[in-house]
Amino acid sequence: MGGDPQSGEDRLIARYFRPLARHPGALGLVDDAAILSPPEGHDVVLTTDGVIAGVHFFATDPADAVAAKALRINLSDLAAKGAEPAGFLLSLALPQDFGEDWLAGFARGLGADADRYKCPLLGGDTDRIPGPAVISITAIGFVPHGKMVKRSGARVGDVVVVTGTIGDSALGVRLRRTPTLAAQWALDDAAGDHLTRRYLLPEPRNAAALAVRAHASAAIDISDGLAGDLAKLCRASGVAAEISVSSLPLSDAARRAVAADASLIETALTGGDDYEILCTMPPEDVASFRAVAEAAAVQAAEIGLIVRGEGARFLDASGAALTFSRGSYSHF
Amino acid sequence: MGGDPQSGEDRLIARYFRPLARHPGALGLVDDAAILSPPEGHDVVLTTDGVIAGVHFFATDPADAVAAKALRINLSDLAAKGAEPAGFLLSLALPQDFGEDWLAGFARGLGADADRYKCPLLGGDTDRIPGPAVISITAIGFVPHGKMVKRSGARVGDVVVVTGTIGDSALGVRLRRTPTLAAQWALDDAAGDHLTRRYLLPEPRNAAALAVRAHASAAIDISDGLAGDLAKLCRASGVAAEISVSSLPLSDAARRAVAADASLIETALTGGDDYEILCTMPPEDVASFRAVAEAAAVQAAEIGLIVRGEGARFLDASGAALTFSRGSYSHF
Repeated sequence: MGGDPQSGEDRLIARYFRPLARHPGALGLVDDAAILSPPEGHDVVLTTDGVIAGVHFFATDPADAVAAKALRINLSDLAAKGAEPAGFLLSLALPQDFGEDWLAGFARGLGADADRYKCPLLGGDTDRIPGPAVISITAIGFVPHGKMVKRSGARVGDVVVVTGTIGDSALGVRLRRTPTLAAQWALDDAAGDHLTRRYLLPEPRNAAALAVRAHASAAIDISDGLAGDLAKLCRASGVAAEISVSSLPLSDAARRAVAADASLIETALTGGDDYEILCTMPPEDVASFRAVAEAAAVQAAEIGLIVRGEGARFLDASGAALTFSRGSYSHF
Repeated sequence: MGGDPQSGEDRLIARYFRPLARHPGALGLVDDAAILSPPEGHDVVLTTDGVIAGVHFFATDPADAVAAKALRINLSDLAAKGAEPAGFLLSLALPQDFGEDWLAGFARGLGADADRYKCPLLGGDTDRIPGPAVISITAIGFVPHGKMVKRSGARVGDVVVVTGTIGDSALGVRLRRTPTLAAQWALDDAAGDHLTRRYLLPEPRNAAALAVRAHASAAIDISDGLAGDLAKLCRASGVAAEISVSSLPLSDAARRAVAADASLIETALTGGDDYEILCTMPPEDVASFRAVAEAAAVQAAEIGLIVRGEGARFLDASGAALTFSRGSYSHF
């Protein structure tokens, strides 16, 4: 960042972002680059993910929630890799009509999450765009050398485990777009709010990162739907997975919606934006993983098994495989 | 990146970007994150900078040049910090009407520069945007622990040195917008092409990074104009600078334009997009710095001195200070 005190850019950076840049390596946002010294014997884990107004969030969403979402979807990647957050860089392109109120709210949300997840702002770049707001974040994490959990380590016989609940966000965004669905899905206000809030504000499972690192043979963060992301993990590992649909962890709200319209299980499994951790581990590790995760207030459910072959199969109570009209969320 | 083979996103990533991701830490772009192991005793240097169609480049610019510019403006930050490139992450938001031809050209340009500057693609994120193309890059570099060159190290008595030539790009973009200026500025085709090409395709001075690290007390990459960026360096260092306008390195083309219209010296000094290195060093280091830089085919010119006080003054042959109607380029 940086900038001339005479320039509007610098004034905005100084007012809203410099107070967040307390990490010494951020150099107060007055240099060309940030600097990090990884702890000895550690690797650097890097991920980048962006959100665009009208694509990944509603332009009317509160600015602090937009900031939190942009950071959290990156934190979720670090969590799934078993890495601890070290900091992040922000690339912000804002339309002319985004005023200082919006920026103030954005910085407040960003700062709150930077503190909560111990992931400080290290640097960034701001621009005006003749189009929708684009917020792109690169998050940096540390992990002991060689210990990053990859997608490719799943082995036949491993158990498939998922954190939290699946599908809330995908149902929530449908509800945001079409509020009348709440009645069709037999949801009261609290249940509807639960689903839309999960879309607005993901809850990355960084509290479970150490458990993932200690026990998982492979892991992926679920951003494009459990079905598609499990397929990616299986492909990277050269294995297949069999998932018991009745074992999938659904929130009360999602369970109610699926009870009202059974086809919504496909939305839940392919809609994306869960930001839960999907991982595999030897059966003997599951109890310990769950104990550590649950001590960190992260629920974890066994949902199936890694087997020989290709692809992920979702089996209903009768043992029949579900088929989906689309595999996973894709922007192209 | 990653992606489902059924999805368009994954197909495009596999076809155009996976071939560029040959660094083992990129994991073939099929994981949530990339991994880097810094050499022992090294710090990690991080910078992010983006370009937006219609703001930082013309939507009609060749795709390979757009990719090169997006990467090079980040490489320039690493060069000014004395860091060696380790790799980069790409966040790409493309309008629906950018076809595969464009993407193929973009990937070709990106791959060529990744090879040229030894800065491999490590990971990224692709999206569609209902607006202009946005290309955001985070570049990562390594530097021996504690050796990153900051903006804040300039000392009274240091000499101010700049690489390459100043103002070509700022004049070039004016020429792109108003081609009839070429006649007013008395430029032939070759001179006009030189200026517009410098805007299209910056030449970051990474070849001089080791010389900067060995000799510079402070450094900044010139992205917002020499005048404004020197003011930032002075502010960070708590010093002032006196620059001799007659010592400024201008290309033949820029010199001709300024001879035709003396007011263009302000464009040259405040227009931005130079991507040269501005640095300071003790007088006794200059000869050695220039020798090392010039051995790497990077010209370097002494342009002034660091003095007590605040701000940067540009003195003409009579010793009178130039005044500028604007200090430096700002997007806000």
